[in-house]
Amino acid sequence: MTTTILVVLGIVGSAARAEDGYDLWLRYRPLHGVHAAAITMRGSSPTVRIAAAELARGLSGLSGARVAESPDLAAGGILLATARDPMVAALHLPVGPLGNEGYLVRTVTVGGKRVTLVTANGDTGLLYGSFALLRWVQTGGALAGVDLSSSPRIKLRLLNHWDNLTGTVERGYAGQSLWDWWLLPDFSDPRYVDYARANASIGINGTVLNNVNAKADSLTAPYIAKAAALADVFRPYGIKVYLSARFSAPIEIGKLKTADPLDPAVAAWWRAKADELYRAIPDFGGLLVKANSEGQPGPQDYHRSHADGANMLAAALAPHGGIVMWRAFVYAHDNPEDRAKQAYDDFKPLDGKFAANVIVQVKNGAIDFQPREPFHPLFGAMPRTPLMMEFQATKEYLGQATSLAYLGPMFEEALRSDTLAKGPGSTVAKVVDGSLDGHALTGIAGVANIGRDRDWSGSTFNQANWYAFGRFAWNPEISSDAVAREWAAMTFAPNAAVVDPVVRMMAGSREAVVDYMTPLGLAHQMATGHHFGPAPWIADLKRPEWNPVYYARAGKDGIGFDRTASGSNAVAQYAPAIARQLADPATTPERDILWFHHLPWNYRMKSGRTLWEEMVADYDRGIASVASAGRTWATLEPQVDAERFAKTAAFLRIEERDARWWRDASLSYWMSVNGLKLPAGAAPPAHDLAWYKAQDFTYAPGNP
Amino acid sequence: MTTTILVVLGIVGSAARAEDGYDLWLRYRPLHGVHAAAITMRGSSPTVRIAAAELARGLSGLSGARVAESPDLAAGGILLATARDPMVAALHLPVGPLGNEGYLVRTVTVGGKRVTLVTANGDTGLLYGSFALLRWVQTGGALAGVDLSSSPRIKLRLLNHWDNLTGTVERGYAGQSLWDWWLLPDFSDPRYVDYARANASIGINGTVLNNVNAKADSLTAPYIAKAAALADVFRPYGIKVYLSARFSAPIEIGKLKTADPLDPAVAAWWRAKADELYRAIPDFGGLLVKANSEGQPGPQDYHRSHADGANMLAAALAPHGGIVMWRAFVYAHDNPEDRAKQAYDDFKPLDGKFAANVIVQVKNGAIDFQPREPFHPLFGAMPRTPLMMEFQATKEYLGQATSLAYLGPMFEEALRSDTLAKGPGSTVAKVVDGSLDGHALTGIAGVANIGRDRDWSGSTFNQANWYAFGRFAWNPEISSDAVAREWAAMTFAPNAAVVDPVVRMMAGSREAVVDYMTPLGLAHQMATGHHFGPAPWIADLKRPEWNPVYYARAGKDGIGFDRTASGSNAVAQYAPAIARQLADPATTPERDILWFHHLPWNYRMKSGRTLWEEMVADYDRGIASVASAGRTWATLEPQVDAERFAKTAAFLRIEERDARWWRDASLSYWMSVNGLKLPAGAAPPAHDLAWYKAQDFTYAPGNP
Repeated sequence: MTTTILVVLGIVGSAARAEDGYDLWLRYRPLHGVHAAAITMRGSSPTVRIAAAELARGLSGLSGARVAESPDLAAGGILLATARDPMVAALHLPVGPLGNEGYLVRTVTVGGKRVTLVTANGDTGLLYGSFALLRWVQTGGALAGVDLSSSPRIKLRLLNHWDNLTGTVERGYAGQSLWDWWLLPDFSDPRYVDYARANASIGINGTVLNNVNAKADSLTAPYIAKAAALADVFRPYGIKVYLSARFSAPIEIGKLKTADPLDPAVAAWWRAKADELYRAIPDFGGLLVKANSEGQPGPQDYHRSHADGANMLAAALAPHGGIVMWRAFVYAHDNPEDRAKQAYDDFKPLDGKFAANVIVQVKNGAIDFQPREPFHPLFGAMPRTPLMMEFQATKEYLGQATSLAYLGPMFEEALRSDTLAKGPGSTVAKVVDGSLDGHALTGIAGVANIGRDRDWSGSTFNQANWYAFGRFAWNPEISSDAVAREWAAMTFAPNAAVVDPVVRMMAGSREAVVDYMTPLGLAHQMATGHHFGPAPWIADLKRPEWNPVYYARAGKDGIGFDRTASGSNAVAQYAPAIARQLADPATTPERDILWFHHLPWNYRMKSGRTLWEEMVADYDRGIASVASAGRTWATLEPQVDAERFAKTAAFLRIEERDARWWRDASLSYWMSVNGLKLPAGAAPPAHDLAWYKAQDFTYAPGNP
Repeated sequence: MTTTILVVLGIVGSAARAEDGYDLWLRYRPLHGVHAAAITMRGSSPTVRIAAAELARGLSGLSGARVAESPDLAAGGILLATARDPMVAALHLPVGPLGNEGYLVRTVTVGGKRVTLVTANGDTGLLYGSFALLRWVQTGGALAGVDLSSSPRIKLRLLNHWDNLTGTVERGYAGQSLWDWWLLPDFSDPRYVDYARANASIGINGTVLNNVNAKADSLTAPYIAKAAALADVFRPYGIKVYLSARFSAPIEIGKLKTADPLDPAVAAWWRAKADELYRAIPDFGGLLVKANSEGQPGPQDYHRSHADGANMLAAALAPHGGIVMWRAFVYAHDNPEDRAKQAYDDFKPLDGKFAANVIVQVKNGAIDFQPREPFHPLFGAMPRTPLMMEFQATKEYLGQATSLAYLGPMFEEALRSDTLAKGPGSTVAKVVDGSLDGHALTGIAGVANIGRDRDWSGSTFNQANWYAFGRFAWNPEISSDAVAREWAAMTFAPNAAVVDPVVRMMAGSREAVVDYMTPLGLAHQMATGHHFGPAPWIADLKRPEWNPVYYARAGKDGIGFDRTASGSNAVAQYAPAIARQLADPATTPERDILWFHHLPWNYRMKSGRTLWEEMVADYDRGIASVASAGRTWATLEPQVDAERFAKTAAFLRIEERDARWWRDASLSYWMSVNGLKLPAGAAPPAHDLAWYKAQDFTYAPGNP
C-alpha cells in the first residue's frame, strides 16, 4: 500500500527558489529540530493517498530530509489510518465525538513502536488531521507528544466565488478567475489541485464556482461538464462543488415562458436540471441563489415569496441530497424603507416556511460588507430557519488588494455578537453553528479573494483572510489573534521575532481601515461602482440607497442615520434589550453610534471631545496605525524574503497615501457641510474639496 | 567592478522544480559538457551588469556549477567589454559593421589567457551578445572556438500589446494584461523584469504598451507616470516604451472642440503632450495610431488625409526624436470597394507625403491576419515611404491558445514574397529592412501573444511565436526552420531525439490550420466577434465585409473572390508581372487560388482532382496533420517534464477535435450551397448543418 511520492524531491529541491507567495501558508521550509521517520498509510483511497503525500511533502520540507512512505511502521514515524483500522481500533481512542470530518492526532504505541497517529472516522478527517499535524509542526510544535483533536462546528464551510464566465471576478482584486472555463473540461490546470490543497488545509469543504449575479449559461450542459471536471479534481480533497443559479434560467435556457416557482412546468424543468446536474456530479452540493436583489430575477417577479422560490428549488434537489442556499441580501428599488431594515422585513415573516434543505444565507451586517457593521438583525430572529453566515474575504469596501486589513477581528466581532435571542450568550456564533436553535444544517460562506495572481489573493496579507475564513468556519469561536499567530508562523517563520510584529500589524489593521474610512458607525462612503476611495458627497445616483449621503445624512445640524423610533426604527429589529440599548446614544457603543443615531457635531463623546473632534481624531488614528504598520514591516526586512517584503512594503505605502486621501477628502466634505474648522493641531487637507471630487478611477478593478 | 550575483544559488537550486513554462526558452537547465570559469565585465552600466548577471545565471544553470563574476580575467572565462575598452581595442576586431546594437562573440587571447569575448560598440550589444552566447551553448554549441557576429537588420523591433486599461487583452489568450495599471507606478511586478529579459534575449527593442483601439486616458498624467515606471524597468534591457494614441484625445482629455490635425490648437495640444511624455520618459519611442479604421477617430473625420494626421503628430514628436507609426489597416463602412483594396487605395497616393519620422505600419496581408494571405500590395508600392511590417503573434484567427500553429513559416512566406517592385529579388523583407528603397527608418511589429498566464503565452508552443517574431525582426531573412530548431533545443533539450520531432510538429502546424480552416485561399470564415471556430454561413452582419460569405462568395456556380479584372481587380495593385500571373487561375499559386478567383466547383486542379475534391482533401489533410502531431508528441512523453507534456497533449486533442469541427461544419455548409456529394471515401460530417449553426461560444476569450 505504499505510493511513491515522486513530488518530494522536487519540493525539497525548491527550498531555495524565489518566494512569490504561491505556496501560501503551506511553505514547508526547513525548521530546526524537525525529524520524522517514514509515513505509513492504511487504506488506498485517493484521499488517504493525498494525505500521505501531503505529509511526505510537508515533513520532507520541514525536516530538510526526505520523509518517505513505507508499508512498515517505523518508530518515530507517522501512522495514517481511520479509526476502523484494527491497529487503531485496538487503541480504544475517543473517536466517537469526531464525527465524519474530525480528526485525532496523538503519539501512541503500536506494535511496540512510538508513532504519531493521525486518525479519524473518515478519509477526509485523515486529510484534515494530516494538515493539522503539519500546522502543529509549522507553528513550532514538537512531534513528540503531539495531541490534537478537533471536529468542525459548522457543516458547510464554503467559498463563494463571484467569478464570471468571462473570466473576470466581481469584487476580485487578484487577477482573473481561477477557473479557465474556456479550456475546461478538456484541460485541468494544475493550479486547481493547489487550490484544493489550500482549502483542505483549513477545512473548507465546498466551493460555489460562479457569481451570485449568475448567468443561466452556467446551468447548460457544456458548463455542467466544466463544473464536473472541477468537482472531479476537488472530490478527494473533501470539497464539493456548488453553483449559483439564475432564477430565470427556465426562461433563458429552458425556453419556458415563465420562471414562476408555482408553475408545474417550471418545477419540472428544475427537477430535470437537478437530475442532469447529479448525473454529471453525483456529490453536487446544491444551488446558491440571489433573487429579487439588485436587479436579479426572483419569485417576487411572480408575486411569490422567497420561500416559494427556495422551496421549489429545494424540492428538485432534495431527492439527491442537495441543498439550497437562499440569500437574504435583498433590497428593492421601489421600497422607501431604510435599506438596513428590508431583509428582516422580507425574511422574518418567512421563518418556519422554508423546506428542510434550505438554508438562508445572511451577510454579517444589514447593509453590505462595510468596514464595520453591527450584526445583522436576522441572526436570532429566525429560530425555525437555519441561517448561514456570509462573510466577504475579498475587501470590496476595505481597500481592495492594497490595504493590509486582516479580517479575523471582524469575523470574531460578528460571531461573538450577542443576539440575546434566548438570553445572554445567544451569540451569532451559536445561531450559525445551529446550537442555539437545534439546527443540523449549518454553514458559513466566504466571498473568495482568490484569483489567478501568482500569490492567489493579490498580496501576502490578503492570504490571511482566506486562511482566517477557513479557520473561523471550522470553529466560529476561535480567536482572531490565535489565527493570526498560526498564519504568521506558517507564512513567514515560527519565531517570535517575526510572528509578534506581524501579528501586531494584523491586529489593528481592520480597525485602522474603519478609522480612516468610516469612523464611528459611518458606512458606504465609498466611490460609486468600484467602491474604491472616498466619495461622501455623492448624491445624484438614481436609487437613494446607492448614494453615500443616504448613509451619513450629514448636514449643518449633525451627522448619522437615525435608526431609533424617531427615525427608521431599525433598532426594533433587535431583541428588546438590545433595542433599548441602541435607542439611546449614551448606551450605544460609540463604534456604532452614527449607524444608529443622527447627532449634532458638538455631541459630547465619552472621551470628552465633541463628535467632530472625535471624528477627526479617528481619521488621524487610522493613518497613524497604517504608518506604524509600515515602520514595523520595515524592521522585518532582514527576516522576510525580498519579493514578498517588497510587495508588502509598496502596498503599505499605497495604503498610507490612501488613508490620508480618505481622511482629507472626508474632512473637506464634512467641513463644507458643517462649516466647522478643524480642531487645533489637526493638519489641513492637502487639497480643496473640488480636487477630491475630481478624482476619477474609471479603470478600478473588480467592477461587476 | 564585480557585482555579486545573489540570484545564482537560487537558480541552480531550482533545477529540480516543476516546469510550468515560466522560464520560456531561458531555462538554463544543466547540459553535459558545459564548463565556464568566471565572468569578467568591464564597465558598470545597468545594462552591462544585467548582461553579466544573465551570463552568470545562464552558465551556472547550464554547467550545473556556480559561475561567478570576477574582476580578474580567468583562463576559460568570459570577458564582457565594449569595443572601446583598451583590452578589446588592442585585438583589432571587425566591430565597425556591428553598428549600435550588433555583437561579436569570439574566443580570443587576452593577457595570455584564452577567454570568450563578448563585445559590441554599445552596452545593448553586449547584452544581445551575452544572450547570443547563451543561445549558442543552450543549442549545444561548445564554448571553445565560438565565433558569432550579428547585428539587427531592422531598426524598430516592436511588440504591439493590444492591452486595455481594464486589464483585458484584445485578442489575448494568455490571461490578463501583464501591465498592472492599477498598481503602477507604485508597485512594479517582478515579472516585468522577466518580460524584459525574454525580449532582450531575442533582440526586441520596443514595446507599445496599449491597444491600438486606444483610450485617450492612456495619455493622461497618471497613465504617463505608469508608462514611465515600465520604461524605467525596460530601459537597461534596451527596450523603449511606445504608446498607442487615440486621435481624438485633444477632445476627450484636452477639452478642445476638435481634433482636426490642421487646427493650430490641436497641433499645440499634441506638442505639449509630447513635451509632457518626454519629461516623464526621456527616451520615449513614439506613438502608434489606428485612425479611421473600424470606428476609430482620425483625420478623415475632418476631411484631412492620413498624411495630414500623421505629420501633425510627427511634428510634435520630432524635436524629441520620437516617431509615429501610422497603421494602414483601414477600411471604411461606407466604401463599397473590395476590402482588400482599400488600404492601397488610401495610402498609395500618399507615398512621399509623410514626414521623415513617420513609418506606415502595414499588416502582412490585405485583409486581417488570416491563416494565409498573399502579401499586402502596399509592399513595394510606396518606395518613398518607410513601411513597417505588422505581424500577429497572437493567433486571433488561427485557433487562439489551443492550436499548435508555429508562425515561423508564415513570417518567412510573407517576408520572402517578391514584390518585383524593382525587378526580381525585391522581396518584402527588402522593403521592410529598407534596403530596397534606401530607408533608414525600418521596423517590424508583432501583435503580442503575452499575458499574465504562468507560461506567458497560453501554451508552451505559443512561446515559439514570440520567440520567432523576435528572431525574424532581427533578421527578416532567417530560416523558419532554423528558428524552430533553436527554440526547441532551448525550450526542451538540445538533442536530436527531442528537437527533430518537435521541429517536425512545428513545421507543418500552420499549414495544417490553413488546410482545416481556410484551404486554397479562402479567408475569414471564422465566427463573428471572437473569431473562434467556423461560421462560413454568416451573412446577416451589418457591414458586408464582416460576413464570411463576403469572402468565400460560394454559390451553386462556384466559390472564391474574383479579384481579377472581371471582379474587383485587386490584382492590379501588384506589380504588373504579378498582376498578370494572378489574372489567370492557371498561373495563380493554388494555395491562393480562391483569394483571387471565383471558380466552378468542378474546376480542374493541378492534382487532377476537381476543386471540390481538392478542398475536401485539404480539410482532411489538415486534420491528419494535427493527429500526426499528437502521435509525435505522445512519443516525447519520456523526454518532456510532466506539466508541459500534459498541457500540450491536452491542447493537441482539443485542436484535433476543433479541426474536425472546422472540416465538418465547412463541408456541411458548402454542400448546402453546391448540392454536391462528398467524394468517395470522404467521411460524412458528424452532425447536420443546423447543429453546426447552433454552436455558440458567448464567452470565448479575447473579444474587444
